[in-house]
Amino acid sequence: MDYQKILFEIKEEIQPYLGLGKVANYIPALAGIDSKKFGMSVHTIDGKLFEVGDSKELFSIQSISKVFTLSMAMRLENNLLWKRVGREPSGSKFNSLVQLEHENGIPRNPLINAGAHVITDILTSNYENPKAEILNFIRQVSNDKSIDFDLEVAKSERETGNRNLAMAYFMKSFGNIHNQVRQTLDVYFHQCSIAMSCNQLSKAFMYLVNEGVDIHSNKEIITKKDSDRINALMLTCGMYDSVGDFAYKVGLPSKSGVGGGIVSIVPNKLSVAVWSPGLSASGNSLVGSKALEIFVSKTGIGIF
Amino acid sequence: MDYQKILFEIKEEIQPYLGLGKVANYIPALAGIDSKKFGMSVHTIDGKLFEVGDSKELFSIQSISKVFTLSMAMRLENNLLWKRVGREPSGSKFNSLVQLEHENGIPRNPLINAGAHVITDILTSNYENPKAEILNFIRQVSNDKSIDFDLEVAKSERETGNRNLAMAYFMKSFGNIHNQVRQTLDVYFHQCSIAMSCNQLSKAFMYLVNEGVDIHSNKEIITKKDSDRINALMLTCGMYDSVGDFAYKVGLPSKSGVGGGIVSIVPNKLSVAVWSPGLSASGNSLVGSKALEIFVSKTGIGIF
Amino acid sequence: MDYQKILFEIKEEIQPYLGLGKVANYIPALAGIDSKKFGMSVHTIDGKLFEVGDSKELFSIQSISKVFTLSMAMRLENNLLWKRVGREPSGSKFNSLVQLEHENGIPRNPLINAGAHVITDILTSNYENPKAEILNFIRQVSNDKSIDFDLEVAKSERETGNRNLAMAYFMKSFGNIHNQVRQTLDVYFHQCSIAMSCNQLSKAFMYLVNEGVDIHSNKEIITKKDSDRINALMLTCGMYDSVGDFAYKVGLPSKSGVGGGIVSIVPNKLSVAVWSPGLSASGNSLVGSKALEIFVSKTGIGIF
Amino acid sequence: MDYQKILFEIKEEIQPYLGLGKVANYIPALAGIDSKKFGMSVHTIDGKLFEVGDSKELFSIQSISKVFTLSMAMRLENNLLWKRVGREPSGSKFNSLVQLEHENGIPRNPLINAGAHVITDILTSNYENPKAEILNFIRQVSNDKSIDFDLEVAKSERETGNRNLAMAYFMKSFGNIHNQVRQTLDVYFHQCSIAMSCNQLSKAFMYLVNEGVDIHSNKEIITKKDSDRINALMLTCGMYDSVGDFAYKVGLPSKSGVGGGIVSIVPNKLSVAVWSPGLSASGNSLVGSKALEIFVSKTGIGIF
Repeated sequence: MDYQKILFEIKEEIQPYLGLGKVANYIPALAGIDSKKFGMSVHTIDGKLFEVGDSKELFSIQSISKVFTLSMAMRLENNLLWKRVGREPSGSKFNSLVQLEHENGIPRNPLINAGAHVITDILTSNYENPKAEILNFIRQVSNDKSIDFDLEVAKSERETGNRNLAMAYFMKSFGNIHNQVRQTLDVYFHQCSIAMSCNQLSKAFMYLVNEGVDIHSNKEIITKKDSDRINALMLTCGMYDSVGDFAYKVGLPSKSGVGGGIVSIVPNKLSVAVWSPGLSASGNSLVGSKALEIFVSKTGIGIF
Repeated sequence: MDYQKILFEIKEEIQPYLGLGKVANYIPALAGIDSKKFGMSVHTIDGKLFEVGDSKELFSIQSISKVFTLSMAMRLENNLLWKRVGREPSGSKFNSLVQLEHENGIPRNPLINAGAHVITDILTSNYENPKAEILNFIRQVSNDKSIDFDLEVAKSERETGNRNLAMAYFMKSFGNIHNQVRQTLDVYFHQCSIAMSCNQLSKAFMYLVNEGVDIHSNKEIITKKDSDRINALMLTCGMYDSVGDFAYKVGLPSKSGVGGGIVSIVPNKLSVAVWSPGLSASGNSLVGSKALEIFVSKTGIGIF
Repeated sequence: MDYQKILFEIKEEIQPYLGLGKVANYIPALAGIDSKKFGMSVHTIDGKLFEVGDSKELFSIQSISKVFTLSMAMRLENNLLWKRVGREPSGSKFNSLVQLEHENGIPRNPLINAGAHVITDILTSNYENPKAEILNFIRQVSNDKSIDFDLEVAKSERETGNRNLAMAYFMKSFGNIHNQVRQTLDVYFHQCSIAMSCNQLSKAFMYLVNEGVDIHSNKEIITKKDSDRINALMLTCGMYDSVGDFAYKVGLPSKSGVGGGIVSIVPNKLSVAVWSPGLSASGNSLVGSKALEIFVSKTGIGIF
Repeated sequence: MDYQKILFEIKEEIQPYLGLGKVANYIPALAGIDSKKFGMSVHTIDGKLFEVGDSKELFSIQSISKVFTLSMAMRLENNLLWKRVGREPSGSKFNSLVQLEHENGIPRNPLINAGAHVITDILTSNYENPKAEILNFIRQVSNDKSIDFDLEVAKSERETGNRNLAMAYFMKSFGNIHNQVRQTLDVYFHQCSIAMSCNQLSKAFMYLVNEGVDIHSNKEIITKKDSDRINALMLTCGMYDSVGDFAYKVGLPSKSGVGGGIVSIVPNKLSVAVWSPGLSASGNSLVGSKALEIFVSKTGIGIF
C-alpha cells in the first residue's frame, strides 16, 4: 500500500473543506490558531512514518491525553477503577452534568470530561508528582523527550475552567473525587495542554496498535487485554457524541481533542494522526474526520 | 482452532451461571420458557458449523430481527433512511421515550425499539406485503425455508404492546411514522416473533461476516460498505444500554434479543450465535454474554 | 367597585395586543378562528354579571374542562385518585412524556394532559355514560342546558391526537389507564370540545368562588375543603408551564385552555372568564393573560 | 379566634409524629440537633404574639433566608433580576443541576438553591459588605438587634458545600454569577447560618403580612405589589419539590429551610412560624408541615 501517495491525495481532496468548522474559542490560548492548518501522519507497525502537510507542527492534544491517563490508571487499579467510572457511551455532550446527577456522580466512561477527572484523580492519589508521571509516560511511548506542557494553555484553561470546576465539585459532592478539586484539576489542565505533532502522536499510539507493547523498547506498556479494551472504549466512547456516526463512516478506534487532533488505530497494522483545528458541532475536527473517512475508503483498511 | 472443543469447554464453564437472570415476562408467550436452556453455534466462513447444547431449539429472535430489517431498508433508501433515524448509541433503556421527546421524534439508532419502528415503517411503505418480504429475506440469508413466524408470540406481543404503541404514536405525532400505527406495529410484532435456532441464526448472519455476500448463493445481499456499516452499528448500538460494557468484555459486533439470543460477528472469519433465556438488567442474555466472553478469551479472536 | 367600567377600560387597553400570539392550529377545527376575538365576563358572588366584547360567543373550552372532571372525580374517589396522579407543578410542557417515564406513569397533576387522562379514565370506570355525565355536570353548575359538545372539534381532535394516544398508551403500559385507551380518549376529546361562552364559564365556575356550593340551587357540588384544594391546584398547576409567572403577575387560581379561554377565581368574591384565541408559547391566551393582569391591577383584588 | 388555645391543641396533636423524619446531616453542625424539638409562634397584624413549645429556641434558618435576600434584591434590581432567574416551580430537587444545563444557567426561581445564589450574587455586586447588609435587613424587619450569624454553622457549610460550589461554578460558566464564586458562596453560607427562633421569624415576616410595610416603624420595606409577588412566589416555589402537595394541604404562602423551620403568611392577618428538625424526603419539616395543616384546619383561615 502506497501510504505516501494516499496522504498526498487526501490533502488534495480535503482542500474544499479547509477552514470549515469552528476553532475552539473557549480557551483563549487556542482561539488564535489558523483554521486552515492540516497535517496527517501514518505510522506502520514495521516502524515506517508517512506524513503530509503540517505534520510536524505542535498543537494542544487536549482530550487525546485521556487515552494516556486511562492507560496509566488501568495499570494501577484495573478493578477499583471501574467502580468509579462506567464503560458506556454517554449519549450526551462531552461536558454534560445531567447524567452525573441521574447516576450519582459516576461518569459514563473515562473518555468524556467527567470520567477523565476521575482518572486524573486516581493518578493524583497514586503519584507524588502526577504531572511529571504523565509527561514521562507520553515521552516513553512516543520515544521523544522533547514533548512538554504548554504552560500558557494550561493557565488559560484554569482561568476559563468554570465548567470543569463545576463538574469536579459535583462529583466530589458524591464522593467520587478524592483529592482537592483544585489539585486534581491542576493536573488535568496540564495534561490537556500537552503539545504534540501528528508525527509524535501517531508514534505515541503505537502501543495500542501493537497489543500493548512499545515498538521502540519492546517493553509491555499495558497487557494485550487492556490494549484491546482501550481500543473498544475508543470505538464506543472516543468521539464525544458522534461515536456512532464516526464508527459508521470511519469505523476505527479513535480519540479526538478540541485542539483539532484525532488519532485512529488499526490494530496490528498502523496508527493515523490527523490535525485540523476547525471543529464540528460535536467538538471533533471536521476536516480531520473527513480525512480519516477518505483514508479508510482509499486503503480499504478497517476492523469490520 | 478446535471450535468444537472450545464450545464443549464453554458449556462446562457456564454451568454455574445457568438459571441466573430473568426470563422476559412482559410477553406472556415467552414467560414460560425454561431459564436453564443453553445453546451455541459457530459458523465459519469456509462453511463449517460447530454446535453445543440446545443449538437446534427454536426461540424467539425478537430484536435480533432488527439487523435483518435494517439490511433490507438500507437497500431501499440508504440516504433518506438516515434523515429519519440517527446512528448514535442511545445512552438509555431500549424502550425509552425521553430521547424521542428531546430530539423531535428522531430515534437515536435503528437497533433500539423506536428506530426499528421507523425501519419497519419504511419496509411497510415500500412493500405490498412487508411481512412476507421479511420472512423471505431471512429464509434467503439462512438458506432455510422452514423459518417462520410464531403467531402465538406475535399475538401475545400485540396484546401487551402498550409501550410500543405509545412509542409509535409518539413518533407519528412528530411525522416520523408514515403508515397507520397499527399496520406498522403488526409487521413489527411479526418480525420479532420469528422463531430460529442458534444454528439457523449463525448461518443467517454469514452475509455480515462475508462482506455482504451470501455464502450459499454467492449473491450480494448488501454492499461491502453497508456490511461494514451494519457491523459498526452493531458494535456501538447493538446491545441496548450495555454496548460499552459488552465491547469492553467481548469486543465483537453483536445484536441481542429479549428472547435470550445473541449473535456476534468476526468479519471474514465466523459468526457465533448463543441462546440462554435469563436476561441481565439491560435485557441481554446473561449466560449468553458470559459464553461469548469466554469464547473470545479462549480463541483470542477479536477485531481490536 | 364598578366592574362594568373596568371591563370597558380593559377592552381599550388590550387593543394594541389583539391579534398577537398564535391560534392553536394542531386541531384543524380550531385553526380557522379569528385571532382578534376578545370577550370577558365577571360574575360576582351576589349573582351579578358584567361583560364586554365577544362575551356571548361560544368557543372550545379545551383544558378548562379538566377542572370540571377533576371536581367530579374528587367526589367519587378522593383518596384513591391521588395514588394515580400527583399534585405537583410539572415544570415541563403540558404534553411532555419525559416526566411520566421518570416517575413510572404517574402524572404530576390532574391539570396537565397526562393527569387529565387519568381523571377521565376514573370517570370512564365509574359511569355508564361518562360523556353524558360530564355534560350534565357542566350544565348543572352553569345552570344552562344549552351547553353541548362540538362534535366537529371532537372528531378533529381524535384525528390529530397522536400525542394524546402516545401518552395514554404510555400510562397504560404502566397500568395507570384502566379502560381501553380509545374509550378513555373518546371521552377526553369530547370533554375538550365542549363549547361555552365567557358568560357561561364565569357562571359555571361560581361553585369554586362559593366554597363548593352551587349559587343557583344552593346545593353542595363539592365540599369546601375540596373547593379550597382545587383552587390551590389551579394556582400551582393551572397555567401549564407558566404557573409561576402567572401567579407573579395575576396571582389568582386560574385555568387556561388552548381554545384561548382562561377562568380565574377570587374566593368568596367573583369569577372572571376571558377569551382571546392567540396563544403564548406556553399555550395560554396572550391577550387573556394581559386582561387579567390589568383586572387585578385596577381592582386591587387578590388573594395575597 | 383563640390562637393560644389552638397552639396548645396542635402541640398535643403532633406528639405522635415527633421524632419522625430525618435531621439534615449533610451539615455537621446541624446533625446533632434533637429531632423531638417543636416550637410554634403566631404573630397577628395587630401585634400580638402567641407561642408554644420551643418557640424561643434559636435554630438555623437556612433557606428561609432566601425570602429576605430576595426582598432586598427586588428593591435593587426589580427588572434586571428576572433576566437572571425565572419564576417557575422547578419540578425537581432543590439542589438539582439538570434544569440549569437545559436552560443555560438560568435557575427556575429565586427560592431554590441555584436561584438564591444568583440573588446573593446580586447583593454581592451591590453592597460593599453584603453580609452586614443582610443581617441589618433581618434585624430591622424583626426589630431585634440580637439576631446573628452562627459562625460554626457557616464554617460547617463551607466545608461540606461541594454541591453548592458545583452549582455556582456551573452558573458562572454560563455567565450568571458575576462575582468570584468563593465570595458569593461565603455570603450565601453566612445568610443560611443565621440563627432565629420561631418568635423572631414570625415577627420578621410581618412585612409580607402587612403589604410590604414594617409593623414596628410603619416604614415601607418593599412595595405592596412586591409583597404580593413574593407571597405568590412562596406559594408556587417556596416548599422545594412539594409546593403542590403543600398548597393542597395547607394552602398558604410559605418558605421552609433544612434547619426544620417553616414560615407561612396569611396576608393582612398573621404569620406563623414553626420549627421541628425532622425532615421529609423533600427537605421540609415533617412535623412542621403537619402542624400547619392542623392550624389551617382548626382556624379555617386560608387564602382560597
